[in-house]
Amino acid sequence: MGDKMSGLFITFEGSDGTGKSTQAALLANLLKNKGFEVICTREPGGNQISEKIREIIISKENDKMNKMTEALLYAAARAQLVNEVIAPMLMEGNVVVCERFLDSSVVYQGYARGIGENIINDINKYAVNGIVPDITFLLTLPPDIGINRKKNQQELDRIESSELNFHKRVFKGYMALAEQNKDRIKVIDANRDIDEIACEIADYIEKLIKERSFKNGFKNFRS
Amino acid sequence: MGDKMSGLFITFEGSDGTGKSTQAALLANLLKNKGFEVICTREPGGNQISEKIREIIISKENDKMNKMTEALLYAAARAQLVNEVIAPMLMEGNVVVCERFLDSSVVYQGYARGIGENIINDINKYAVNGIVPDITFLLTLPPDIGINRKKNQQELDRIESSELNFHKRVFKGYMALAEQNKDRIKVIDANRDIDEIACEIADYIEKLIKERSFKNGFKNFRS
Repeated sequence: MGDKMSGLFITFEGSDGTGKSTQAALLANLLKNKGFEVICTREPGGNQISEKIREIIISKENDKMNKMTEALLYAAARAQLVNEVIAPMLMEGNVVVCERFLDSSVVYQGYARGIGENIINDINKYAVNGIVPDITFLLTLPPDIGINRKKNQQELDRIESSELNFHKRVFKGYMALAEQNKDRIKVIDANRDIDEIACEIADYIEKLIKERSFKNGFKNFRS
Repeated sequence: MGDKMSGLFITFEGSDGTGKSTQAALLANLLKNKGFEVICTREPGGNQISEKIREIIISKENDKMNKMTEALLYAAARAQLVNEVIAPMLMEGNVVVCERFLDSSVVYQGYARGIGENIINDINKYAVNGIVPDITFLLTLPPDIGINRKKNQQELDRIESSELNFHKRVFKGYMALAEQNKDRIKVIDANRDIDEIACEIADYIEKLIKERSFKNGFKNFRS
């Protein structure tokens, strides 16, 4: 995270149907109850402009979308969310809980669509403006279980309805990324009760807040 | 242009209200009448997905748009147009006439919005995929005349309604870019009769086609 950012930036990653929204909302509530100023948001989206970009990305009408167009649209939505929501919140020392961030682009477009991690990082360098999550929870489920869960909830969108092999590459990409970023990315087995998962996440956060409350600039945080 | 591209890629650049659409349509017609396969398109837009991106860019509702979001949206629209329309046409040895291309992003976002030419080129490297116009016509008018022409035609969109100083920076940026790319960019005084301008452009194109018809691979072109 940038030097001037005194808040806490928490992201949730994982394949579709792993329960990211549920866990993000539970964690945001927990932190609000502890007295923190928290915003819970998602990618692509989280503000008027990025939600419009999201519509273009996920619409099944847009089945001719080139993979580079897709990567650039995700980066555009990210740039708006960072500048309009995430950076201002973090600069005021608050908490941002975000469902998906740059890791999703690295895994989905870079790895699973085959654009390459370096190109995705190149494109997104200007979108994220130096902001890196303090901690990332990677919720994992075998790919077929996740997609079947989603199917039972709602009609699948353009990205979700990609072939199973794509979702398998996503799973593999996430595991590789977690291996490269052990300090930041915590792998969470999502094939358990919601409460059990929430407890494990809360433990990680409690520990992180304790560590941080000793540092300067982390002004709004109580240990 | 990439080595495998045997067609002719012609772009029109210039501030708003300089008559790019009119001249692009006249040139496309002229070339069609000479028997070429021609597509006349525009940026941002020119296909279903890029037109949707265009709506987000120009909508006055989106006045909170960050300049990096704007730059990435232009690049996304460009990636789709290049992959879906421009590259396939050029690979088949045909003519593409395009209103605005990468030069517009360099001038509007890079120069006038202050992002910087290098960052714009970085972002767009993956969008244009090595495709460079064979010739570019830069239509010039003093900035206040161009915008007043537009105002008389229609309500101004988000980009057009930027302050006059912005349009002055655009003009200056275009002139600098033309100076750096003298071989490719032809500066055309747009403060003249439509026919007079069209004749000057047609002369340049006739000369270019003659030069090209001697080269291998320029298969569909008659001198």
